[in-house]
This record gives sequence, C-alpha cells and structure tokens, in this order.
Amino acid sequence: MGLFDKFEKNAALYNQLSAIGKNPFTVVMEEVLGPTRAKIKGRETVLAGTHNYLGQTFERSAIEAAKQALDHEGTGTTGSRVANGTFSGHTKLESDLANFLGMDQCIVFSTGYAANLGAIAGFVDRVQDVVLIDADCHACIYDGCQLSGAETIRFRHNDPENLDKRLSRLDPKYNGKLVCIEGMYSMYGDVAPVKEFVEVAHKHGAHLLVDEAHSFGVYGETGKGVCEADGVMDSVDFYTGTFSKSLAAIGGFLASNHPEAEYLRFSSNPYRFTASPSPATIASANAALANISENPVFREKLWENANRLHAALTQFGLRLAAKPGPVISVLLPTKEDAFAAWDFLLEHGVYVNMAIPPGTPGKESLLRLAVSSAHSADDIDRLVSAYEAMAEAFPSARVTSDA
Amino acid sequence: MGLFDKFEKNAALYNQLSAIGKNPFTVVMEEVLGPTRAKIKGRETVLAGTHNYLGQTFERSAIEAAKQALDHEGTGTTGSRVANGTFSGHTKLESDLANFLGMDQCIVFSTGYAANLGAIAGFVDRVQDVVLIDADCHACIYDGCQLSGAETIRFRHNDPENLDKRLSRLDPKYNGKLVCIEGMYSMYGDVAPVKEFVEVAHKHGAHLLVDEAHSFGVYGETGKGVCEADGVMDSVDFYTGTFSKSLAAIGGFLASNHPEAEYLRFSSNPYRFTASPSPATIASANAALANISENPVFREKLWENANRLHAALTQFGLRLAAKPGPVISVLLPTKEDAFAAWDFLLEHGVYVNMAIPPGTPGKESLLRLAVSSAHSADDIDRLVSAYEAMAEAFPSARVTSDA
Repeated sequence: MGLFDKFEKNAALYNQLSAIGKNPFTVVMEEVLGPTRAKIKGRETVLAGTHNYLGQTFERSAIEAAKQALDHEGTGTTGSRVANGTFSGHTKLESDLANFLGMDQCIVFSTGYAANLGAIAGFVDRVQDVVLIDADCHACIYDGCQLSGAETIRFRHNDPENLDKRLSRLDPKYNGKLVCIEGMYSMYGDVAPVKEFVEVAHKHGAHLLVDEAHSFGVYGETGKGVCEADGVMDSVDFYTGTFSKSLAAIGGFLASNHPEAEYLRFSSNPYRFTASPSPATIASANAALANISENPVFREKLWENANRLHAALTQFGLRLAAKPGPVISVLLPTKEDAFAAWDFLLEHGVYVNMAIPPGTPGKESLLRLAVSSAHSADDIDRLVSAYEAMAEAFPSARVTSDA
Repeated sequence: MGLFDKFEKNAALYNQLSAIGKNPFTVVMEEVLGPTRAKIKGRETVLAGTHNYLGQTFERSAIEAAKQALDHEGTGTTGSRVANGTFSGHTKLESDLANFLGMDQCIVFSTGYAANLGAIAGFVDRVQDVVLIDADCHACIYDGCQLSGAETIRFRHNDPENLDKRLSRLDPKYNGKLVCIEGMYSMYGDVAPVKEFVEVAHKHGAHLLVDEAHSFGVYGETGKGVCEADGVMDSVDFYTGTFSKSLAAIGGFLASNHPEAEYLRFSSNPYRFTASPSPATIASANAALANISENPVFREKLWENANRLHAALTQFGLRLAAKPGPVISVLLPTKEDAFAAWDFLLEHGVYVNMAIPPGTPGKESLLRLAVSSAHSADDIDRLVSAYEAMAEAFPSARVTSDA
C-alpha cells in the first residue's frame, strides 16, 4: 500500500506546523467581518492576502442580485452547461463580459482554474499541436498543457525574444501553436509585455492566450487588463479571466474574436463535464461587473492604496519583487524566514499569503500582500506598522541585508 | 493557423443543429419555474434532464442559509482553500459530511469534476504509481488519470474478475495502485458491485476510490450511496461525491478513513489553485445535507417516481439500459434517431438529456431521463404521455424493433 509514501517528507513539515497552530495553508477565517477583516485565531485581523482587489464582496447590488437569483432560480443548476445548466443568466453574463471587453464572444466556466484548463486542453490536440508557455505561468496553465497531452515548451519569463527563438526552431510538423502568458503574474505582481508577445506569436502563425485573472478590472484605462493597457485588446486571440478576484464571486471565462472559440463548448471536458455556476454566483458576478465598469473609483482607490503601501514597504528597506500594483511581494531568502515572518505578521494582526519554492518563480520564498480598494485608511495604517515591525525583526527581508 | 482545423467535422453538425434551433447542447432555461419546470423556447417544459434527484433546489432552509451567508460572509471568498478561502462554513461542511458518512475526514473541492481530478492527480505519482479504472468511468476520472501522468489501465465495466486479472498481471515496479469505480454510472444508471471490487482491490494491496456523484443521497438505507447498500462504507478507501446533484449546489468532496487523505490539501493542484466555494454555496449545501439526512421522504419519493416511470417506459416497449433508478436511459441505435427523438420529446414539453458515442458506453445513443423526488403527479403524467408518443413515433427505440 505505497500510495502515501511520496507524501512523507512534506507531511512531516505540514503536520509539525499544524501541531503548533502555525500552518499557513490551513488558516480558518472563523468569522468574516467585512471585505478586509476577519477573525483568525479569535483575533480581528486585517486581510491583505485575498484577491478582493476591487473590494466587491459586500457590495449591496451584488448581494441583492444573488438573493433574487436564489428565490427565482434556486440554489444550483444541477447540470452542466451542455445539459440543463445554461440559464438565461449564464448567457447574459457571457454577453455582458464580451461587451465589456469589446470582444465578439465569451464562454463562462465554473472556476477560473477550469477556464484555463478547459481552454488549453480543449483547443490543443495531443499529436498535431504544441503549446508554448511562459515559465512562470500559473498551475492551471501547466495543468491544461498536461491534460492536453501535447508537447509543452517553456520559454523564459516575460521574454518575447526567447519565445521568438523557440518558435523559430519549432519542428514544422505542428499544425496548431498556442502561446500562453499572463497579464500580471500573481507571485511577484510583475506585468507581461503583451504587445511584444502578440507580435512574436502572430509572426510565427501562433495563437496567443492571455490569462488576465489578476489584472482584469485593475489594469488599463477602463479596467480591461494589461491587454488594454498595452493597446492590444483587438489582436489577442484568447483572453481568460476569473470571477473570484475583482468580481468577488467564483468562476472563469474565455473571451475571443475568433468564432471558432465557440467550439470549446463541445471540445472542452472541464466545460462539458462540470456543473454550471449557481444562479446566485452568476447574478453576483454580473452585478459586480456592472458596478466596476460603471464606477472607476474602485480601481482608482486600489491604485492609491497600492502606491501608498509600495512606497512604505520600500521605505522600510524591504526587498520588493515588482513595481507598485495590486500584488506587493516581499522576497525572503529561506523558507524558515518566510514561515517566521508570515507568522510574525499574523501575530501583529495582518494576514498575508506565504509562498515557498517550488511554488515561487525563483529560489526565494515570499510574502504576498494583496491590496484591496476596500482597505480603509485604518487598514493601511495597520499594514504599514506591521510591515515596519517585520522589517525591523527580519533583516533578511531587507535590501540592505544583501549588501 | 491550424488550431481550429480539428473542429471541422464536429463543428459542421454543431452549427447545423444550432442554425435550425435544435442543438441539444445549447439549450437555454429561459425562465426557471421551479425544481422540475422551466421555460424553454418560450414553452413551459417538464425538466427530466437535471440531476436534481432529491428536489432540493428550492428548499426554503437552503435558500435562507445561502442568503444569510451572503449577508454575513459576502459573495465570494476571493481565495483558495490554502490561502484565505477557508471560512468556518467550509470546515463545518467537511465535518458534517464526514459525520453523515461515518468517515474520519472529508475535503471539500470547488466542483465535483475537481474532486475526482484533484484526488487522482493528487494521490497518484507519474512514475511510481498506476491507476486502474472502470472503462465506463466519467470524464473527470479519465482526466484525473491524464493529469497524474501515470500509467492508466482500463478494466471491463463492472467486472471485478477482469480487474483481478489485470492487478495480477501488473508490473511489480509499481509502488501505489489506485482503482477507480463509480457507485452508479450516469449514462445507463447501472450500479457497481462495490463489495466485490473492495475485495479484489485490497487482495492486491490497491486502494479503491468510489465516485458516488450520482448515488449519494439516493442509494443505501440512509442515503450514503451504493457503498452503504453494499455494506462497505468502512472498507472503501476514498469516497468522492458532488454537491451539484442531490445537494442542489455546486462543489465536490472526498471522504476517507485514511488520515493521509489530508495530504491532498498540499498535493492536489485543483484543490490548491482554485478559488474555494462561495459562502452561499457552502451554506446551501450544508442545509440540503441536513434536510436530506433528516427526511427520508425525499429519497422515498424519488424511488416511487423512478419505479413508476421505469414501469411505464417498460410497458411502452422502450429499450431501457438498466433496472429502475434515478437515471432511466432509453437506447437508440443511431445518432440521427437520438437527435430526432430528443427533439420530439422537447416539442412535447419534456426536456431530457441526449448522449451519443463516444460519450456513451457502447455504440448506441441514448436519451437519459433523470428522475426527481420533486416530480409531481402531473409531471409524471406528462412524462409518461410524452414517452408513450415517442415510443409510437420511434420504433427503433422499442425492444420489439430488434426482434
């Protein structure tokens, strides 16, 4: 019975952390107190490790829309999109998202993970096609490649020149070529040169998929993401996103100007064989979309908070992974430091995310602060003072410690 | 730009059906009128192609619980289970499910597809392990195997002897062996001999995973599924299920008596890298679980309806795929017949599911009637009369047509 042997090493650390109540991966929000506050271990804590970038979790219009959907359409669809699981709300959200993005069509999936998994595995043939992905892509993109069974080539992170080289050297046997990148990468918070990637991909007859999970609603003049900021909304082939970040629900989508994208509806297992999103989820996502597209104030506030926090953390000498943005990551040299610093912040009433290799892009560990437009001045003050104390207590987190 | 070439053949049929408004895979529920009725193409239709087996979609307690969760916890968690996405409701549902099933622990996933995908890919190592699956297993089990990257061996459907043979011949190099079956198979509605599978798997030192997606709440004296009916709740290694059928929400779970199952929380990508279920979904699933476990009447009513419908369809001479149960499938010899018969039923005010090869177990196409405890006497009457007319109009659907 050797199925569990492989877990031994990680299990030891996991169980040890759990035993002392300091496992960063099993934190429970015992009571949610608002978009940026929850009770953790009995203590009111400022949440700076959510993806509630535009603070939509408690917006009245979304909550009321969800309640109406519950009354009129029930608690669930009890079926997949290709069976009984397409309600008028699902098609409305698809058309509203397409309209918002200025694209011809949109397909809604039940999770963001399923959107990338289902798009890649649905489009890419095991034998005829090839996928090229940025080395720092999210796990769901890696999993989509694995599920497709096709050859997968990684190119250097945010390096269009390296992609160009790899496309040039490609075996001519391949029929379809799909390139996958992200708008903003969630670990460091760094942004892709999407425009250059479009040019390289199209020069070689490849299609480009841009995952804007973390940048939708946040980047670009009207919140359409890094593709908008780079002026390439019209030339990107596939645009994927999620409802569980700026839209504060759960689900994912793929938008495109290619009419053939529609064929995912019969070619993609994660689309066909998953129950469709519940009516309440669809209703709240749709209300949040209306809210953020009509009110730039959420995006403006987010950037104001992000700039303020980034400036403060820079001032404390912390080693930051990228320019100001919704994700502000502090790099730490060792896992041990990361665990300790994460716990230090939690003890100071601040919840952030912790990531360690191989989950991080490099060999370093990191603490990820995710900014929300809903962070109040008081939230920001608490964050700033907790990080100041952390910078003091952990010299290894500071730039100067490298000198 | 050959990415779309592969769709040509299927796309032609898909577009042709859509053009005449008869595409079975793009039906829209324009207005939901209750647990078993919706407006389709402007007409009030009896829904017999949902998985609302226990009719829980409009139960007051579940709707109220979901509304309270919206008010107190917001529209979404905006994070994965390993980050900020574990609320007290998620852990309560895990413990309530474990209690209901009489198992030590339970892990909640964001969809049922993700539960099997994540369990198999999380447990099974690409190199050291092997997976053996019933040939008729659901797509999410096949996809879990593909995602794991491990060698996957199919054994003959519902044939423990065939599994025995394959386990006997296995290369001794494998460390872990995982066998996957389902309690009730959703295409034919036939039931697995779980007890015999447990014996065969354990004889060879393999672990057994039983997917009870369609049988949870329906089979067994207290609704624990086919494992309960077969008296093997204590000896099954992994029990997976979904919230989108008898619990009328969306999500999935894995329950087990092995403490090591907990390690999925760090080994399973679909668990770690997906936003967690929304608070409203968790609340409604939990309320539905309480409702169906306290009130056997839902299960009793389901079986009463299933027996009545199965007897009527048998009387009309229709070729049925299995004994009475929540799924009653009529076999048809050709795709063309299946499309036409499906459309015939819809025109007669009845929505069922249609499946064609390779989505069906054999070479035949089928129409799947999914029974609900919420089907009223009037619903049943309408179903019976529509099927009677269909049996008359489609001789190829009748047993006698084979003679």
